[in-house]
Amino acid sequence: MHASHPRTGVWLVGARGSVATTAVVGAAALRAGLIAPTGCVTEQQDFPHHHLPPLDSLVFAGHDITDTPLPKRAAELAAAGVFPEQLLAPLEDELTAADREIRPGCPAGSTAPQEEAANSLAADIAAFRDREQLDRVVVVNVASTEPPATPHPAHHDLAALRHALRTRSDVLPPSSLYAYAAFTAGCPYVDFTPSPGARLPALDELARAARLPYAGSDGKTGETLVQSALAPMFAARALRVRAWSGTNLLGGGDGATLADPETARSKTDAKRRGLGHMLGHAVEGTVHIDCVPALGEWKTAWDHIAFEGFLGTRMSAQFTWHGCDSALAAPLVLDLARLMAAGHAAGATGPLGALGFFFKDPAGRTEYGLAAQYAELLRFAAAPGGTP
Amino acid sequence: MHASHPRTGVWLVGARGSVATTAVVGAAALRAGLIAPTGCVTEQQDFPHHHLPPLDSLVFAGHDITDTPLPKRAAELAAAGVFPEQLLAPLEDELTAADREIRPGCPAGSTAPQEEAANSLAADIAAFRDREQLDRVVVVNVASTEPPATPHPAHHDLAALRHALRTRSDVLPPSSLYAYAAFTAGCPYVDFTPSPGARLPALDELARAARLPYAGSDGKTGETLVQSALAPMFAARALRVRAWSGTNLLGGGDGATLADPETARSKTDAKRRGLGHMLGHAVEGTVHIDCVPALGEWKTAWDHIAFEGFLGTRMSAQFTWHGCDSALAAPLVLDLARLMAAGHAAGATGPLGALGFFFKDPAGRTEYGLAAQYAELLRFAAAPGGTP
Amino acid sequence: MHASHPRTGVWLVGARGSVATTAVVGAAALRAGLIAPTGCVTEQQDFPHHHLPPLDSLVFAGHDITDTPLPKRAAELAAAGVFPEQLLAPLEDELTAADREIRPGCPAGSTAPQEEAANSLAADIAAFRDREQLDRVVVVNVASTEPPATPHPAHHDLAALRHALRTRSDVLPPSSLYAYAAFTAGCPYVDFTPSPGARLPALDELARAARLPYAGSDGKTGETLVQSALAPMFAARALRVRAWSGTNLLGGGDGATLADPETARSKTDAKRRGLGHMLGHAVEGTVHIDCVPALGEWKTAWDHIAFEGFLGTRMSAQFTWHGCDSALAAPLVLDLARLMAAGHAAGATGPLGALGFFFKDPAGRTEYGLAAQYAELLRFAAAPGGTP
Amino acid sequence: MHASHPRTGVWLVGARGSVATTAVVGAAALRAGLIAPTGCVTEQQDFPHHHLPPLDSLVFAGHDITDTPLPKRAAELAAAGVFPEQLLAPLEDELTAADREIRPGCPAGSTAPQEEAANSLAADIAAFRDREQLDRVVVVNVASTEPPATPHPAHHDLAALRHALRTRSDVLPPSSLYAYAAFTAGCPYVDFTPSPGARLPALDELARAARLPYAGSDGKTGETLVQSALAPMFAARALRVRAWSGTNLLGGGDGATLADPETARSKTDAKRRGLGHMLGHAVEGTVHIDCVPALGEWKTAWDHIAFEGFLGTRMSAQFTWHGCDSALAAPLVLDLARLMAAGHAAGATGPLGALGFFFKDPAGRTEYGLAAQYAELLRFAAAPGGTP
Repeated sequence: MHASHPRTGVWLVGARGSVATTAVVGAAALRAGLIAPTGCVTEQQDFPHHHLPPLDSLVFAGHDITDTPLPKRAAELAAAGVFPEQLLAPLEDELTAADREIRPGCPAGSTAPQEEAANSLAADIAAFRDREQLDRVVVVNVASTEPPATPHPAHHDLAALRHALRTRSDVLPPSSLYAYAAFTAGCPYVDFTPSPGARLPALDELARAARLPYAGSDGKTGETLVQSALAPMFAARALRVRAWSGTNLLGGGDGATLADPETARSKTDAKRRGLGHMLGHAVEGTVHIDCVPALGEWKTAWDHIAFEGFLGTRMSAQFTWHGCDSALAAPLVLDLARLMAAGHAAGATGPLGALGFFFKDPAGRTEYGLAAQYAELLRFAAAPGGTP
Repeated sequence: MHASHPRTGVWLVGARGSVATTAVVGAAALRAGLIAPTGCVTEQQDFPHHHLPPLDSLVFAGHDITDTPLPKRAAELAAAGVFPEQLLAPLEDELTAADREIRPGCPAGSTAPQEEAANSLAADIAAFRDREQLDRVVVVNVASTEPPATPHPAHHDLAALRHALRTRSDVLPPSSLYAYAAFTAGCPYVDFTPSPGARLPALDELARAARLPYAGSDGKTGETLVQSALAPMFAARALRVRAWSGTNLLGGGDGATLADPETARSKTDAKRRGLGHMLGHAVEGTVHIDCVPALGEWKTAWDHIAFEGFLGTRMSAQFTWHGCDSALAAPLVLDLARLMAAGHAAGATGPLGALGFFFKDPAGRTEYGLAAQYAELLRFAAAPGGTP
Repeated sequence: MHASHPRTGVWLVGARGSVATTAVVGAAALRAGLIAPTGCVTEQQDFPHHHLPPLDSLVFAGHDITDTPLPKRAAELAAAGVFPEQLLAPLEDELTAADREIRPGCPAGSTAPQEEAANSLAADIAAFRDREQLDRVVVVNVASTEPPATPHPAHHDLAALRHALRTRSDVLPPSSLYAYAAFTAGCPYVDFTPSPGARLPALDELARAARLPYAGSDGKTGETLVQSALAPMFAARALRVRAWSGTNLLGGGDGATLADPETARSKTDAKRRGLGHMLGHAVEGTVHIDCVPALGEWKTAWDHIAFEGFLGTRMSAQFTWHGCDSALAAPLVLDLARLMAAGHAAGATGPLGALGFFFKDPAGRTEYGLAAQYAELLRFAAAPGGTP
Repeated sequence: MHASHPRTGVWLVGARGSVATTAVVGAAALRAGLIAPTGCVTEQQDFPHHHLPPLDSLVFAGHDITDTPLPKRAAELAAAGVFPEQLLAPLEDELTAADREIRPGCPAGSTAPQEEAANSLAADIAAFRDREQLDRVVVVNVASTEPPATPHPAHHDLAALRHALRTRSDVLPPSSLYAYAAFTAGCPYVDFTPSPGARLPALDELARAARLPYAGSDGKTGETLVQSALAPMFAARALRVRAWSGTNLLGGGDGATLADPETARSKTDAKRRGLGHMLGHAVEGTVHIDCVPALGEWKTAWDHIAFEGFLGTRMSAQFTWHGCDSALAAPLVLDLARLMAAGHAAGATGPLGALGFFFKDPAGRTEYGLAAQYAELLRFAAAPGGTP
C-alpha cells in the first residue's frame, strides 16, 4: 500500500531525545496542516526543492537507549513550552506509530565485540527499510554529545577497523558505531552532534567504498549561527576583530553533557576554528558552555566582540541569542534528511560539503561564512548530482 | 610636477566635518606609513584593486560653510578619542595643505537664483582639477543630513529644473545643488548622507546626459550594517521575524541633526524598507534616533528581534553596536572615491548599484543583504566596465 | 456564614483585564495551595504581616466595561504563557464566583451628568461590602492607562467639583470618577496605573474629609523598578550619570494604549522625574514606549547609562529586563490591598506615602530609591498607625 | 613646615600599579583644582566628612617590586585612555615627589626568614611617617591578586606565627606579610584585593593586640557592585532568582593574574557567597573571569539572571558593565584612606565592618546589599567612634 509514491526513511539515533521528538511532532503537525513550515529551510517558497523527497513522504524510526514512549516525551516538551499542548491530541496516533518503530540502542559499557552490535543495529535499519518499502533511509545522529574519541590505530584504516571490531568492545565510540552500522546497511549518515560519528578516516573509507554520502558535524543553531553571519561582516569591512568572547547558558540535556569541559572541548574547538577562518586570523577570547538547568529547554548566548577600526579606534559589539534548542534543531533534521536523500539518489559519496550551511564544523569544507554556505546549498539543491 | 602618475581628486562637501576630517587625517597617516589600512575595504589583501587609483594618489579638497581650520578640527577629534593625539604632529603640513583647498560652501537662505550658486560651486571643483592636473575629481557629500526635500515639479525634469534654477532660490535642497554642480563640472557624485542629493529624477537625467555615475545613499556604518548581516540569516533559516525594534543613541553632529523627527524620517524609512526586503515581508517595530550629546563622537545602537521558529516557538535576539561614527565612515569615503573613479574611467553612468554594499538605501538596487552586496562589489571592482 | 473571621474586599477597576485576572487566578491558586507566593512582597517570611489581613481572606469583585467572562480571560492568558493551563481546572468555581461579582463599568462618552454615574459606581461597591459582610473594601484601579486629564477648575476644589458633577458629563476622567466613587463609598483607593485617579486636589480633599487613605501611582514593575535599584548605586558611588536612555517594548493591552505619545507622556514624565531625584540632577536621555504586539503579554526594556568616573573617564552600563507584565503586577495588587486595608484600619488618611515602594510616581513622597522605600514599607507594615 | 595642620600618609602596596598610579594622579589633580571629585564617595556634598582628614592632606608613598617611575606609568595610563594626557604636565613635580617615596617591595622567592623582610617593610613605613611628620599612615594593598594562601598552622595563632617567621621564608603570602608589617609599624591596613592580607586569624589577633583597625577585602568596582544593587531588588520583591550567571572580561594587569583559575577562585567564591546572602538561598550559575588583553585597561561584565515571578512565570534580566578598572578603584582608595584614618583616630580595632560598602567580601560583616552598606557607612562616618 506504500508503493504508490516513493518514501524516505529517517532513522534517528537518539529517537526519544528532545530534538528527535520535536522533529517527529513537527513533521506530523505539518502533514496535518496544523502549522506553517517555519524554520524549515527547504520548504521556503523559492527553495529549489524539485530534487527533494516531499516533506510528507518522510517516515520516522530510530534507536534509543531509554524507553519513555514518544507521546510522553512530547507531552513533557509541550509542558516545557517547546510547542503548544493542544497540538498533541490530533497527532497521538502518528506519534504512537513512530514510537513503535524505535529499537533499543547500543548501551554503553557492553563487553561484547562491537561487530555484533554493529550488525544488529544495521539489521534494525534494513528491516525498517524493507518493512516500509522505503526508497532509502537517512540515518541522523541526534543523541547526546560524546567526549572526543580515544585515539586508536584502527580509526585510520578500514581493514584494521573491521579486524578490531571482531574482537574488541571499545574501538569505536557509540556515534561512530552507529555510523558504521548505517554505512553497512547502505544508508547515508548525518552527524548532527559534535561527536566523532563518521569523521574517522576508516569510516570515510567505508562510506566511499559503499558509495554513500555523509554530512556533519554539529548543527549550527545558536551562537555559532550568529557568528557565521556576523564574522564575515567584520572581514568584508576590514574591521579588525581583536577579541571575540562568548558564554553559552544551556538548560536541559546537552547543558549537562557539555558541562564536562572534556566533552565540551570538541564543540568549543570547532567554534574557535570557524571564527579564525572567517576573520582570516586567530583572535583572543574564550568560549564558555555552562549548564543552567533553570533554563529548561532554552539556551541563551552572549558574545562580546572587541574590534578596531580606522586609525586604530577601539569599538565593540555584543549580541545575545535566546532560543529553544529543539525548536531550532528539529526542522534542520527534516531538511537534512531530504537533502541527503537527494544527494544519495544523485550518487554523492563521502563528505557532502555542500551541506556545510547546517554545521558548526562542516565535513568536507573550510567555508564557515553563512551566506557563502547558503549560496552553495542552493546550488546543490538545484543540482544534487553536480556538486558533491 | 604632478604629471608623473595619474592622480584623483576627492572633493568633500562638508570638508571640515568629522567624517571628512577623519578621512583626510587617515589618508595622510596611511601615506606616511603611520597606520594600517584597518577599515579600508579596498585595501584588503585579496581585494581586486588593479583598476582602482592607489590610495596615495588621492588629493583632497572641498566645500564647507564653517571656517575652523582642518588642523584644529583634527585636534578636536583627537581630544574626543577618535584617533591618538600623537598622530597629528607629523601630518601637520598635509592637513594645512588640504585646508587651503577648502572653499566656502553654499550658505542656506540665500535669495539669489540657484543657477548662480551652482555655477560657482562647479567652478571651484573644476579649478581644483585644473590646478592640480587631476585625472578626475569624485565629489562626496559628507555634510549634515537634510530633511526630506520639499517636492517641486522641476525635480522630475531636467529642462524644467534648469529653467527654475535661473529664477528661483529654493528649488533644490543644498545636497542636490551640490550634485547638480558636480555633474555640471563633469564629476561623479556620492551621497554619503540620506539627503536627497543626486536622487531626484532631473538629476538622474543630468548624470546620464553627462555620462557620469553617481552612488548613494547614506553610508552603512552601524545598526543598518549589522541588520544587513543578520536579517539574511533569519531569511535563509526560514525563521519568521515578527518584530525588529531599534534604538540609536547618537552623540555629536548628526545626533543633533537627526533629533528632528522630520529629518530623521528619511533615515528611518530607509532602514525599515531594507529590513522588509531582506526578510521578505514587513515586520512590526519602530526605529528611534536619539541625540545624546554625552556620547561625544560615539554612537550606540540596540536592536531587539522577536522571531518565531518551528512549531511557532517564540525566541529573541538582541545586539548592541558601540562605534565611533567618523572612524567607521571615513575609510569608506576613501573606498568610494577609488571605486567611483574606476567606474567613471570605465564609462559607468547613472546609479552605480554595484556599490550598494556601502549604503543603507542603495541607488539602483533593491538588494540589501550584505553578503550579496559584497559579492557584487568584488565583481564590479574586478571589472568596473562590466556591471554598471 | 462569613462572619466567623474578618474579610477584606478587593474591588478591581478593570476587573477583566490581564492584571486583574492574574491577581484573581493567583489568589485562588495560593488559597488552593497550588503555587508558592513568589512575587508577593507581604508574604515573605520576614515581612511584618501581623497587622495585615491574611491573603486568603481577600474577596474579589470589580467593574469592567467588557463582558468576557473571567474563566475565558484566564484561559487566554494561560494560552499566552502567563501561567500554566493545568492550573485553571481546579480554580474554575472560584473564577466563576468572582466573575459573578463584576459589574458594568462606566462607559466612555456618556452624556449624563457624572454625579449619576459616580453614585451608581459607589452603590455597586457598597452593595458588595454589605452582601459579603466585609470589614472594608479596597478599590484598585488596574484599567487601561488614560491620557493626562484635561485641566478643569473644578479639579482644584471639592465644592466646585461636586457642583460641576451635577450638571456636566466630562469633568472627571474615568479613573478619577472611580476614585470619587470609592471615596464616596468610604473605601481606600489605589492608582495602579499612571492615570489621574485620586491625584487631583479636589479628590485629595475628599479623601481627607472622608478620613480615607489613597496610594499610587503607576505600579513599578519593569524598567523603573530596575532604575530605582541602580540609580542610587551611581549616586552613592559619586559616579556622574551623563545620560540615561531607555526603550520599552510592550506587547498586549497597555502597549497599544501607550503607543499614543500623549497617553505615554504621563508615564515617561514620571520616569524622568524619578531619575533626576535619585541622581540629584537632570540627565540627558529619552525614554521610548513602543507597542510591539508580537511580544504578546511580555515586555522588554533596554536601558543605556553613560556615566563618568574619576578623572572624567567615560564608562557605560546597560540592562535589559524581559518580563511578563501581568505576572509582575498581579501580586503587588494583592500586597497593596492588604497594606491599604491595614492603613485604613489604623486610621491613615490622604496619600499613603509609605507605599511608595510599589510606584513609579509615589503620591506623598519624593523618595524614589528602592532600598529607602523598602525600609519605609517595613516600618509602615510593622506599625501602620505610625507613619501615614 | 608640615606641622601647621595634621596630615595622613597613604602607603600603597603596589605603588606603581595602575590603581595606585591613578589614585596619586587623581589626588594631585584634585588638589590642583583640575578635576571634580567624581567617584569619590566621601567628597559628596552631603557626606558627613567632618571626622575625616581632608583629601588634600593625604601624602603618598609605598612599596613596589618594579621600578618604572610613576610619571612614566602615568603617561602609559593616559595613552591607554584612563585619563587625558594634558592632565599630566602640571602634575609632573608632584608625581616625581611621590615616586621618590616608593621603596622596593618584598620580592617573591626570597629564602631569608620572613621576620627580616617584615621588619624592613615596617621600618620603611615608620620612616615615612617620621620624615613627613604624619599623624598616621594607612597601608592599602593594591598589588596583584594572589592565589589562596597555602594553609599553615601558624596562620591561626600569633605566637606560633611570630615563631615561624623567625626561621621560615614561606609562612605568609606577600599580602599577609605586608599586613604584618603594617600592624608592626602601628598602621591600619586595607585589603583592596582578594588576597589573604590581614584575614588570617593570627593577623586579626595582632591587629587587636595593637589596637589597630583593618578593612577588606577586594574593592567592589564592577559586576559585584551592580549585583549588590540588583540582588536586594529581587529579594525585596519576592522574585525568585533561579540562576545568576556572569562573565567578566578583563584587560590589563589583573586580567592576566586572574586567568589562572586557582587565583580567581578567591574572587569568584566571594562573589557567589554574596549573591547567596542577598537572595536568601543558593542559586545556579557560574562566574567566569577571562583575560582579554585587547581590552587594555578596561573591563566588561555580562550577567544573566533567570528568575521566576507570580504563578511561576519565567522571566530574565541582563546587564553589562563597561568600565575602567583603575578609574573605578582609585577614588575608593582615597575614600578608604580617609575613613580608616578616622576609624583609627576614634580607636576602632579589628575588622572595620562599617566599610563593607567598598568590598566584595566584607571583613566583619555578612551584609552584602549596597543600600544597607551605604546606610551603615554614613552612620560610621558621622560617628567613627560609635560603630567599629
